[in-house]
Order: sequence, then structure tokens, then C-alpha cells
Amino acid sequence: MGKKKVVLALGGNALGKNVEEQKVAVEKTAKIIVDLIEQDLDIVITHGNGPQVGMIQDAMDNMVVMHENYKQIPLPTCVAMSQGYIGIDLQNAIKYELRRREMDIKVSTILSQIEVDEADPAFANPVKPIGRFMTKEEAEINESNGVHCIEDAGRGYRVVVASPMPKRIRELETIKTLVGAGHIVITCGGGGIPVVDHAGKLEGVNAVIDKDNASSLLAQQLDADFLIILTAVEKIAINFGKENEEWLSDLTVEQAKQYVAEEQFAKGSMLPKVEASIRFAESKPGRRALITLLDKASEGLAGKTGTIIHL
Amino acid sequence: MGKKKVVLALGGNALGKNVEEQKVAVEKTAKIIVDLIEQDLDIVITHGNGPQVGMIQDAMDNMVVMHENYKQIPLPTCVAMSQGYIGIDLQNAIKYELRRREMDIKVSTILSQIEVDEADPAFANPVKPIGRFMTKEEAEINESNGVHCIEDAGRGYRVVVASPMPKRIRELETIKTLVGAGHIVITCGGGGIPVVDHAGKLEGVNAVIDKDNASSLLAQQLDADFLIILTAVEKIAINFGKENEEWLSDLTVEQAKQYVAEEQFAKGSMLPKVEASIRFAESKPGRRALITLLDKASEGLAGKTGTIIHL
Repeated sequence: MGKKKVVLALGGNALGKNVEEQKVAVEKTAKIIVDLIEQDLDIVITHGNGPQVGMIQDAMDNMVVMHENYKQIPLPTCVAMSQGYIGIDLQNAIKYELRRREMDIKVSTILSQIEVDEADPAFANPVKPIGRFMTKEEAEINESNGVHCIEDAGRGYRVVVASPMPKRIRELETIKTLVGAGHIVITCGGGGIPVVDHAGKLEGVNAVIDKDNASSLLAQQLDADFLIILTAVEKIAINFGKENEEWLSDLTVEQAKQYVAEEQFAKGSMLPKVEASIRFAESKPGRRALITLLDKASEGLAGKTGTIIHL
Repeated sequence: MGKKKVVLALGGNALGKNVEEQKVAVEKTAKIIVDLIEQDLDIVITHGNGPQVGMIQDAMDNMVVMHENYKQIPLPTCVAMSQGYIGIDLQNAIKYELRRREMDIKVSTILSQIEVDEADPAFANPVKPIGRFMTKEEAEINESNGVHCIEDAGRGYRVVVASPMPKRIRELETIKTLVGAGHIVITCGGGGIPVVDHAGKLEGVNAVIDKDNASSLLAQQLDADFLIILTAVEKIAINFGKENEEWLSDLTVEQAKQYVAEEQFAKGSMLPKVEASIRFAESKPGRRALITLLDKASEGLAGKTGTIIHL
């Protein structure tokens, strides 16, 4: 029997909010990942990029304003840049931790593009906030350049972009080749670089794919046994914050769908994680999704905590 | 007998000077590369990143000035970003051209770090200009932030960084795995992300490795048959611009070293290409380096033009 295969989706807390925080955060994250590697699993790692891609786009937009010889840098180009620098920091931290434990395992970072459908209704309704908070004036300048912004809960304005569903991971064969060769692979960073296929020509689109959705697709296509979504809560809850609040350890796809229908999970926060988990768990018997805290990944995999979703 | 293996180092003209130029330039570059692939060669592609990494660093530096909640982004982080977005554009253009010719070959981009020696004398003498031309005032702000600048031939000021010798390609095994699986691999972009190894911990350093030096090392370590350096001239010349100017088609390592000793080649331009070629050609009998125009790659490989350097 082959090794169990795990797709591990890292949330924002695994990376920190900026370049310096990231250098520190990935050291802790690497320890948690290598704890999993020690359990003799094939591991493929994905990660978010909200603050990072926002920072890059922000910098590029400022540059356009300041220097007329530069033009606007498209968002998918910024996603590619974010994959580059996040991937390398994560890869180095994992390699260092492996070496510290005298484990000789390769770690590779694969730039990856994910195809989306141009007709995805998400394009008509950009909802995903990226980057820093802005003043009303900054938001107005962005709007006048065709960049949508929203007022975010009284904390200021943020750029919002479309978040279409991932359809096809273009670098799947590369990922499979390296996993097959025993590498720990980091890929689909920030949900993948969003592209559309125009008669064989891949063109970047102005969007950010939800990284949990991308991870669910990747886990299905790699025929993984586990999808682990690491986030800021140990378990998911129903009736959250109410008297009858209940923390969930184990639920079937059917139960999970029922709770989704009851609108038990917050949009843009827990809901996409639960939906991504459902899609993975229902895709084939035996596939299990786990949602838990970064620190609890190993315990969760051992069935001691977290929320498991299965058929 | 296995296929011949070629490391192809693309110069600036293969990529253009900015994001829009790059989208167009890579289409032409891809046709030239696929012409080579049709000759049944294993191809590994490297590329420069001078304008691109300069643009990124510039944007990041401006951001630091404009928003105090951001801190300076280290140059190696900017190199990682540049590998991300150049690699993807190049990969997509090659994939499209392969598809147009109904050739089913995988193309993968590998982020890559190259170890340098902290004691490399290059660190004491930063000479490699990156990015756009600046005013004297901008240069002074940079200098006050510890970023070195030079006045460049009356055209303005530019940032200069150290260009140490590459010592070890950290992702070599990943590259070998993918080449072995028949992939066209794009790697060591911009000369690789420069790192030093502190007891197993890789740390980025403020430098840009010469991409021809990096390509020469890669070609040696992959046991390539050919190193092809594509640049803005068809052949190299001695007594350049003089009455006795002579264009060279074929020269031995010994002759090439003699011409280097005579200072026949311009520093920061043809000299590093000749030196990188010498290092590859002398590393093992049978290894040949070719310097020619981007458009002439196939003809050069067929021995019809360009300058070949061999033992």
C-alpha cells in the first residue's frame, strides 16, 4: 500500500502579514509541517496570499502613479510574484527543519496557474478584499482606474476582486511528477494564478481564487486521502456565539450540507472552508477533510481534535 | 544514446523591458525555443531579470517611502518575485507554441536559489546596475538608505548591487527530476535567488548573480552538451570597432583565454559571457558553448553561425 497523501492548506496565520513577519511565521509553520512529514505521509502544501498580493499590487499601483514610464501591473502577475517569494520562504523553512531532524527529503515550489471559467458569475460581483485599508480618497482614485473597492466594516476601504471557482490546475502533471519522486511540493499559492484558456493561450484574469477551493480541487486531482485546512479555529461550530453553540468533531457531508443550508457558517470566512471540504469529501469514498488550528494539525490527523468531514 | 542536453540562457531582448513588452517578446522567443525543441533536444531555459527586478525593487522602495507600515523588501525577495512572473509568461508562451505545433511536451518553472560565498570579494565592490535611471536626488535618497548608486555614462543614476559567483544550485535535484521526466524546465531566472547557507539555513543576500555565470554552472551540473548564450550580437569579435576587427566563429578555450587576457571583451557586457562559456567548455571534453543572436539559435547549433567555444 502506498503512503497516505495529504493536501495541507495553510491560512494567513501560517505566513504572517508582511515580509518580516513571514520569515518568523514560516519557522513555526515548518515545525508543524515536518511533524506531519514524520508520520510518513506524502505532503502537498498550498497557502493563501491575501496580505502579500495586496502589498505587491499596492506597490505596483503606486509606481504607476509616480512614474509615467510604468504601466499598471495586472493582478495575476502580482499573484505570480507572491507565489515566488512566499514559496521560497516556506521551502527554506521546511528544508531547514528537515535538516535539523536529519531527514533527507526534497522540497520544491511549483508556480501554478488555475483555469477559471470566463462566464463564472463571480466576475460580475467582486467580493474578495485584498491588501491594506485605504482612505476614501485612495479608494476613489482606484475606482476611477477601474479597480473596485468596498467600505469594510468601518475600518476603511479595500480593493475587492472577483473570486471565481477553480476549474483546472494547469501544472498538475509537474506536481504529480515531483510528488511521485518523493518531494514535498508547495504549489497553488494564493489559490493559483487565475487564467482563462483562449484557444490554448493562457491569459491571466483580474481575480483571486479562494485557496481552500483551489486546495480542494488539487486534493481531488491528486487522489489525496486527506485535505487539511488550517485556520484560526480548532473546530467549526454551529449556533456560533449563541447559548446553544455546539463545536463539531465529526460530521457527514450530508450534515455539513444541512448546516450550510441553515447558513450556520460565515460567508467569506468559515463557509468557503466548509464548502471546499464538502466538495473533497463527497468526491470519493474514503476521502476526509479536516478543519483545525495550525498548531493542531497532527492531533487533528490522529482524530484527537478538529472537525472531520466525510461521506 | 540519450538526447543531447542544452542549457539556453536568454538575454534581455528575449523578454523586453516591461510587463507589456514581455507578453509580446516571449511569443517570438517561444517560437525560437520550440524550433530547438523540434530538434529532439532536452532543453533547460534560464533568463535575465535586470529591468524586471529593478522595477520590482523600485516599486517596493517607493512603497516604503509612502506608507510607514511597510518595511524595505530585500532584493532576493524581489528576485523571487521576478522569477515568478517572468517564468509564467515564458512557460505559457512556450506551451502555446508547442500546442500550435501539436507537440505534447510539459513545461515547468522551478523557483531556484543559488548559493554564493559570503566572502566573495564582489560584495565589497557592487558593480551590477539594476532598474531604471534616476535623478541625482533620488540616488542620494537611496544612498542614505544604504542602497549604492552610480552615475551611468551621462544617462542618469542607477542602483548597483554586488554580483558574486554562483557556487551551488539548491534546487538541482528538482530540475534533474523534471528534465528526467521529459519536461522543458525554466529555472535560475535572473541568475537565481542569491543565498548564503548559515548552518543549513538559507538566507537571501543583497546581490544579483550574473545569469550567464549561473547558466554555466547549471549546464555543468546537469552534464549538458551545449550552453547557448543568446544575446544582441551574432558573433563575438576581437579588435571590435577597429580596422583589424575580426568576427570569431570557432575558438578554443585556450584562444578565448588569450583574448580575455588581452582585454578584448567589454566588462559587464561580452566579458562575462565569454568567461561563462570558457568555464563550461573547459569543464569536460565535448562540452561546447555557443554565443549568438536569439534569432540565430538553431543556425548556431547547426554550426552555421555564432561563436563556438570548445576545448
